[in-house]
Amino acid sequence: MTDTDTRYMALALSLGRRGQGTCWPNPAVGCVIVRDARIVGRGWTKPGGRPHAETEALAQAGSQARGATAYVSLEPCAHHGQTPPCAEALIKSRVGRVVCAVEDSDPRVSGQGFAMLRAAGIEVTTGVLRAEAEREHAGFFLKTEQGRPSVTLKIAGSFDGRIATATGQSKWITGPEARRIVHGERARHDAVMVGAGTARSDDPALTVRDLGYKHQPVRVVASRHLDLPLMGQLARTARKVPVWLCHGAGADAERLRAWEGLGARLLPCAVHGVQLDAADLLRQLGSAGLTSVFCEGGSALAASLLAEDLVDELVGFSAGFAIGAEGLPAIGALGLDSLDAAARFDLVETRPAGRDVMHRWRRSLR
Amino acid sequence: MTDTDTRYMALALSLGRRGQGTCWPNPAVGCVIVRDARIVGRGWTKPGGRPHAETEALAQAGSQARGATAYVSLEPCAHHGQTPPCAEALIKSRVGRVVCAVEDSDPRVSGQGFAMLRAAGIEVTTGVLRAEAEREHAGFFLKTEQGRPSVTLKIAGSFDGRIATATGQSKWITGPEARRIVHGERARHDAVMVGAGTARSDDPALTVRDLGYKHQPVRVVASRHLDLPLMGQLARTARKVPVWLCHGAGADAERLRAWEGLGARLLPCAVHGVQLDAADLLRQLGSAGLTSVFCEGGSALAASLLAEDLVDELVGFSAGFAIGAEGLPAIGALGLDSLDAAARFDLVETRPAGRDVMHRWRRSLR
Repeated sequence: MTDTDTRYMALALSLGRRGQGTCWPNPAVGCVIVRDARIVGRGWTKPGGRPHAETEALAQAGSQARGATAYVSLEPCAHHGQTPPCAEALIKSRVGRVVCAVEDSDPRVSGQGFAMLRAAGIEVTTGVLRAEAEREHAGFFLKTEQGRPSVTLKIAGSFDGRIATATGQSKWITGPEARRIVHGERARHDAVMVGAGTARSDDPALTVRDLGYKHQPVRVVASRHLDLPLMGQLARTARKVPVWLCHGAGADAERLRAWEGLGARLLPCAVHGVQLDAADLLRQLGSAGLTSVFCEGGSALAASLLAEDLVDELVGFSAGFAIGAEGLPAIGALGLDSLDAAARFDLVETRPAGRDVMHRWRRSLR
Repeated sequence: MTDTDTRYMALALSLGRRGQGTCWPNPAVGCVIVRDARIVGRGWTKPGGRPHAETEALAQAGSQARGATAYVSLEPCAHHGQTPPCAEALIKSRVGRVVCAVEDSDPRVSGQGFAMLRAAGIEVTTGVLRAEAEREHAGFFLKTEQGRPSVTLKIAGSFDGRIATATGQSKWITGPEARRIVHGERARHDAVMVGAGTARSDDPALTVRDLGYKHQPVRVVASRHLDLPLMGQLARTARKVPVWLCHGAGADAERLRAWEGLGARLLPCAVHGVQLDAADLLRQLGSAGLTSVFCEGGSALAASLLAEDLVDELVGFSAGFAIGAEGLPAIGALGLDSLDAAARFDLVETRPAGRDVMHRWRRSLR
């Protein structure tokens, strides 16, 4: 591994990020092809997951790919899916060397992409910026290994962790800069998710706005009984931007039909106590192809995700005032026996976001 | 005002900070005497409030004060108190010029220090780093103008604003770095204050530890009924480090005598509803000479200070885990009618404090 390798891999990773939120169920891979210290091809996974990053970059490079080095943020695929394997394409283009960040954990690929390349006499280096790549592809790896997407939980509350007054007023606790960051987070995730209470009380659109961004994330609502307003923003726009409803077996049949009629996709989930089973809900979303979900509350859904240790990242916004103990808590009951039992997160960054504080955390490795 | 003036005034302000927490009831003033671009005297208000900063600096300068410029962070006093007026001392030393940051708001001084200097033919410049000096002397100004000390409220809680689990476990939510910052805050305030519930449940010492710091702040407990453990840390150490107890008129006479016997100072305060009246409590502390108080909770005391808009600074620490809605809230009921009615704070800084986030806020000017 050289400094040059690291530099080009950092570029491949940043290209890969362009596909995040749009290319599920496939991973958001980036690829750079370099010949004689000159970049001759760049690619990233396109919306819907095809073409793959390598295909794009090789097409740009054309005949210049011969003898070049290809930097790919994830092991090239080795299996015939809806496209021919990328490992094969790299071999056909006669690249001289392939540098990867991390192995694919998909059992159809794992190690076989590298084996195929090596068998063709191509030099393979792997592990360049591995930790960064593992983070970038965390959702894809979770889906492959555990069958669920990664979960980022957003909590925008008052100084004392309240998301509404006792009378339900919540607009606006945090300011426009915080909301702008939230829209950016929505864009980089495959889906945005809220619980039924939030869908009823806020009537949110859950779309990405004011960022010049066309692609919209899937909008997921977790609602055991499907008691959601049929005239709200989600209902009215379900044909334009996907709405997926996770519900329990006991949900009213007429409501199911009504939502189907509006264009929503229905995902039956297991029930745990009085709520949807958070682990099963995420498995259903994973089976449907999602690699990452941005959860915006409310307190009951946030609590069930945290209680089951299913939150990978936390993004908090704290405003400069207190609402007090009568206010609605950001996170519902967790049933913690002791402080040691809490799911812990490591601080990634903290900075001002307009008038508010933004803090970002990542699940602690124990 | 020149760059040179600003630079020396910044030094005077930083010298003044050395006296913070120790020189009440007097302001923590800093003074620098400069002759021919050389610093010939430096001083700050000493523990207990005497000698004054100017006296110290002039003593250092000796005969070199003649024709020199004196930089003082607050208007020199003009009245004969327990020491002769500093304005007189500056005149006697025959300094050529006095540069000040801000006028004293004490009616015995206000403008008269400057008048005395000018009448003696000394050039006076004022307003150099005024905003900074107003912040440094905020507690002293509040005491002079409103009869109460400044209040810094600390809240160290979980990600979701809880300060203990449902079963009362609170050790430790935040880490050693956060606690170290808290000890630094204790040291720079005249007093540390908690409510009765915190005094009972945590049995805190409320002292400054592990910072190589000898002077200790006064320890104040707000307890309407004085139902505090007579065998706790505060009781045992009340003769070594002052303990002041703010109580209501109905407090048990035997308890009053017991605490007096232990060496505590008793401050009767007005009662408002079921709690001590926060405004009157602070007035009593102001009358007793305090210029700044660092309040460390609990939730009821924090709420009554916030509800009466008596908090000047907030220092928050948020840990990387949630406790959930059953946990003890950091701030009790505020009775807010709407978000607009909340006391607002402006973000001053945010940064990591070990594993936790530290955020500091200052009351918004409306």
